[in-house]
Amino acid sequence: MSSVAELGERRIIDLIIENLDKHPRMAVPFGDDVAAVSISDKLVAVLKMDMLVAKTDVPRGMSLQQAARKAVIMNVSDLASKGVKPIAMLTALGLTRDLTKEDMVSIGRGLNAGAREYDTYIIGGDTGEASDLIITCMVFGLSKPDTMMTRSGARPGDILAVTGLFGKTSAGLKLLEEEVKVPERLREALLEAVYMPRARLSEGLALAGSGVVSASIDSSDGLAVSLHELRKMSKVGFRITDAPIASEAEEFAKHRRLDAYDLALYGGEEYELIVTVRRGCWRRAQQAVGRAGGSLIRIGEVIAEEKVVLQRDGREEVIPYKGWEHFKTT
Amino acid sequence: MSSVAELGERRIIDLIIENLDKHPRMAVPFGDDVAAVSISDKLVAVLKMDMLVAKTDVPRGMSLQQAARKAVIMNVSDLASKGVKPIAMLTALGLTRDLTKEDMVSIGRGLNAGAREYDTYIIGGDTGEASDLIITCMVFGLSKPDTMMTRSGARPGDILAVTGLFGKTSAGLKLLEEEVKVPERLREALLEAVYMPRARLSEGLALAGSGVVSASIDSSDGLAVSLHELRKMSKVGFRITDAPIASEAEEFAKHRRLDAYDLALYGGEEYELIVTVRRGCWRRAQQAVGRAGGSLIRIGEVIAEEKVVLQRDGREEVIPYKGWEHFKTT
Repeated sequence: MSSVAELGERRIIDLIIENLDKHPRMAVPFGDDVAAVSISDKLVAVLKMDMLVAKTDVPRGMSLQQAARKAVIMNVSDLASKGVKPIAMLTALGLTRDLTKEDMVSIGRGLNAGAREYDTYIIGGDTGEASDLIITCMVFGLSKPDTMMTRSGARPGDILAVTGLFGKTSAGLKLLEEEVKVPERLREALLEAVYMPRARLSEGLALAGSGVVSASIDSSDGLAVSLHELRKMSKVGFRITDAPIASEAEEFAKHRRLDAYDLALYGGEEYELIVTVRRGCWRRAQQAVGRAGGSLIRIGEVIAEEKVVLQRDGREEVIPYKGWEHFKTT
Repeated sequence: MSSVAELGERRIIDLIIENLDKHPRMAVPFGDDVAAVSISDKLVAVLKMDMLVAKTDVPRGMSLQQAARKAVIMNVSDLASKGVKPIAMLTALGLTRDLTKEDMVSIGRGLNAGAREYDTYIIGGDTGEASDLIITCMVFGLSKPDTMMTRSGARPGDILAVTGLFGKTSAGLKLLEEEVKVPERLREALLEAVYMPRARLSEGLALAGSGVVSASIDSSDGLAVSLHELRKMSKVGFRITDAPIASEAEEFAKHRRLDAYDLALYGGEEYELIVTVRRGCWRRAQQAVGRAGGSLIRIGEVIAEEKVVLQRDGREEVIPYKGWEHFKTT
């Protein structure tokens, strides 16, 4: 009998899904960033529930308020990747007995802060006693059936783009693990990325509104894993021609003699959007995101062969399906 | 600094709520069985998220499949108490590392079984590693603004009623704790109540459809606590003239020399609906529930004085706000 620790998160999810009857009005398949169900000819209810477990998802030095805020961001980011505005949120708190009254206030404040940053509200929830601090949030939104971006529509020749650069968070997490000496300014930038992640909601809404995005995913499982997930759902491949590496990640990599590409590709807990834009529509997509106050960065293209490759120093290397996965220990 | 263990669940929830900005389109106040938000003039989105923590909510001998099913029932029951049909559900699973592949299948089957019993489906979710098994579910439904039953509308003179008799579950839990000898037939009935609770969805939909219910709550916190919650939200009181005690609870009470009233009043994990029916509308309410295949049992009346009293053996006693509360140890 395989245990959860050997199965890995993806196999566990498959085992659950295999035993579920399928809703006749499911508007996106299992495995997308959100769940959705048609409630009329013109309206889809979009639902997402994501769980923050303190022992695995809260890095050292993160305050309770930041942790609660992060639980909100994780959920908002998934709706952002579909181009759906969050309308309201709930939270379920698994609380350890040692938490104090002040801790409860911090959690309440963090939840509220995260929600209000994205113009939504916490409207209910549940609490219970648990052995870990667990903050589960769910977010609800509405979409028209044809404007929601999914993971399934990328076609060869489409442009591959992201809403920001990668690697600061994984560098920040390494910094916390190893306590290496780096310039204070760099340290602050990296820890800010870890403690105060941001969801790309304006960008996602602008991209959905532009009508030229063929597929979209949030990057919370890391750039490499997210591209592979997009590959599986769209049945295409990707060639990265310009890896989106944050300058801070490069600087940190130099200090620690690491490969900055590894930091950018195999991290996680970064909440950028990864999208594919229809051929010939690049300017429209870029302008839409620009008007929303963000930036859209072209990093490569969609290819027919179902693999992810990276052009680097004149060579092409295959990017493995690798990143952070819960449970898996081998 | 008070810890969570001293604060008790209600105070914890208040501490969170005090720090939340209020959604301008919240359709029911904090503290009702569900959260709800207006999405148009004619439509309210109804959301509920409830968490099952194995170490506190899963009694001895309950299978994983039954536990997963129960997590669904808990959520459906809250929608039932508002008269709202569940459309779709999500689940977030906190999983311990020792769970096996077979355990995952049991959890998937239990979730699906619970959802399908109430004509709904699990359409998505999340998993993570945790120190306890935690099954959080959320359920989504839609309602017209004026048909949803809330906790707030009871008026003096209304009839107090329930959809079933109480006490089997608390008797069953006692049986599991103490392993007393009782007739096999009784044992089976009590354990069935514990392991296979049922939500009163048909009854709730029928009651909302009847248009004669002034307030409604589900009884999962126990009859006494639920009546006090209804009292607080409606600013009325209740006189129980005919305590709804299940014959099995009476039989068990005799065996164990317990007070059957205590089993019925101060239990919990029973998913009956407690409603108030407008004066002169009793037959309409009762017939509506009867047509839906259930029964509505008159147990007393709404009074102006804000207390809960019980008529018993020709005397009247005050029923305290007492029942199962998470965390509270004193």
